[in-house]
Amino acid sequence: MPKAPRYLILAHDNFGPETSKTANACIRYTPDRVVGVLDRGHAGRTAQQVLGFGGDIPVVATLDDGLALAPTALLIGIAPAGGQLPADWIQLIARSIERRLAIWSGLHTFISDIPELAALAATHDVAIHDLRRPPARLEVANGRVREVDATVILTVGTDCNIGKMTTQLQLLGHLRARGIRTSFAATGQTGILIEGRGIGVDAVIADFIAGAAESLVLECASDSDLVLVEGQGSIIHPSYSGVTYGLLHGALPHAQIMCAQPGRTAINRCEWVKIPPLVDFIRMSEAAAAPLRPAPVIGVALNTYDLDDAAARRVVDEVQRETGLPTTDPVRFSPAPVVDAIAQFHQTRPR
Amino acid sequence: MPKAPRYLILAHDNFGPETSKTANACIRYTPDRVVGVLDRGHAGRTAQQVLGFGGDIPVVATLDDGLALAPTALLIGIAPAGGQLPADWIQLIARSIERRLAIWSGLHTFISDIPELAALAATHDVAIHDLRRPPARLEVANGRVREVDATVILTVGTDCNIGKMTTQLQLLGHLRARGIRTSFAATGQTGILIEGRGIGVDAVIADFIAGAAESLVLECASDSDLVLVEGQGSIIHPSYSGVTYGLLHGALPHAQIMCAQPGRTAINRCEWVKIPPLVDFIRMSEAAAAPLRPAPVIGVALNTYDLDDAAARRVVDEVQRETGLPTTDPVRFSPAPVVDAIAQFHQTRPR
Repeated sequence: MPKAPRYLILAHDNFGPETSKTANACIRYTPDRVVGVLDRGHAGRTAQQVLGFGGDIPVVATLDDGLALAPTALLIGIAPAGGQLPADWIQLIARSIERRLAIWSGLHTFISDIPELAALAATHDVAIHDLRRPPARLEVANGRVREVDATVILTVGTDCNIGKMTTQLQLLGHLRARGIRTSFAATGQTGILIEGRGIGVDAVIADFIAGAAESLVLECASDSDLVLVEGQGSIIHPSYSGVTYGLLHGALPHAQIMCAQPGRTAINRCEWVKIPPLVDFIRMSEAAAAPLRPAPVIGVALNTYDLDDAAARRVVDEVQRETGLPTTDPVRFSPAPVVDAIAQFHQTRPR
Repeated sequence: MPKAPRYLILAHDNFGPETSKTANACIRYTPDRVVGVLDRGHAGRTAQQVLGFGGDIPVVATLDDGLALAPTALLIGIAPAGGQLPADWIQLIARSIERRLAIWSGLHTFISDIPELAALAATHDVAIHDLRRPPARLEVANGRVREVDATVILTVGTDCNIGKMTTQLQLLGHLRARGIRTSFAATGQTGILIEGRGIGVDAVIADFIAGAAESLVLECASDSDLVLVEGQGSIIHPSYSGVTYGLLHGALPHAQIMCAQPGRTAINRCEWVKIPPLVDFIRMSEAAAAPLRPAPVIGVALNTYDLDDAAARRVVDEVQRETGLPTTDPVRFSPAPVVDAIAQFHQTRPR
């Protein structure tokens, strides 16, 4: 990937704590790359005011206002269900290309496959980065990851958009600080954007999900001793469970970290699917892995953003007691309990 | 689809009971469409001699020998792991197109995406049918199938290539003969070839596996009261479990039929994954469906092709006793036990 760009993030009508996952992760983990956010609904506010983090990054109403912030790239900051490109954005992207902004997108619809935009990008000599475009050649998985020495840890969760990527990113620095050579295996467009490498496993042809996960883990394991794999979806998600299982059975983790949001009792936008009690769900997740390679759940990462501090502390303690597992909210509190669990597992697991 | 073609089936070096799944299903279910099989290793023999069924359909060594049988189409009869097109076949396909054979293929590599072959087909005005090409627009699944009245039955199995499609095709006519409006929802290239409609769920983008299954069931349910969905893979298959789960959670069957091969104790080509005892595997399959919609296993279809009649009869009785479920080999013996189970379930399930 080229050197760090200066992003103007497109998030019209969708900038918010729960609606702009890609934008938010970029602002959290690479704030120095973000010059502003384009959302006519929040114009005049700051990222901090809208998200609760992100400091003074301004929200602006129009592309012209955004251009005044001297971006070098337009980043599509939201990922709608199905990844389809809203039609009226094509115009805005075209105008951005004409102003020589590079385009970064994690949508299923590849910007560089839209002939008029591809032609325009060629004319203006700007790059289009389609983060979800899979590698040209993928293999079917066959269990080769069982031969690597690295310890593989997968975040899993009760639902989508619950902290599987964020948890790994919060853990990463702490594990490295303890002297463990740790890598982050990004499996979604936002993780790829932050890490600079990865494979969007939800965007490969179905037969190759596990193969994509396998090749990604092999790549990460080649230069690290501990691989933190970004989980996707949920084993009970009616839209995305195929991706979840393909990733689980392709990456073949040694252990799982469970991500959950205490207040969430049903799958978001599919409320007819109830989320089982966490203790049961942990057992189900271990059963999902077991026929291929046992992978105990060794820690719990809660997402308590919608609770106050006292309630968050209380629920962390409660879940720790119920599950008997090290538990934290790795964003709000110290990630140490889960970092400890992973470090200890890595050092003591049978080899 | 156009009216029935006369196939010459390409299966060089791979024609056999276990290696040419697409060829074999075509020969079993639409023998009147097959004029011959191209396999230099078995030239001079008949399908009957190689497969144990298929009568006098001849095996020939060269394209010229095949052309003497007056085919109207070349059918790619094998589907190698990963679906990649063997390079030396391109030449053979090109020569077939020049002789005005239409091309039917279930490979992941789309024949019509190979520029030289697409151009040649245009020049000679012959059609290329890429059976795995997904519909242009797919939705993310959201559980809409829960609203249809039709009973949905999914075949599941301990492994790939174990009888999930064959079982449904064996049941189909019997259920129709009982006056139940029954449809077959084809999910793989061979089923699509036989049925004339379907979606190759293993060939869609990973995020849309369940959505593809959902839209296929909705389509089939629009003109039938009982939908027999062709299962794929296995919930424990290290390469393809993502497809299996996406199909299960998108189709949301009311009941499952378990397909198994008594002698098989490990996943084919991934022998490090052991197949649990059938009674346990049935419980695992029910657990896989339960969080979304309970789907009991109501019958067992065994694949006993590698046993003699007495041993086959014995194992059917044994499995029936162990599982307490109606059991048969629907190819070798009467499908009636499983047909009865489905008909009864369809008529008595709570609505």
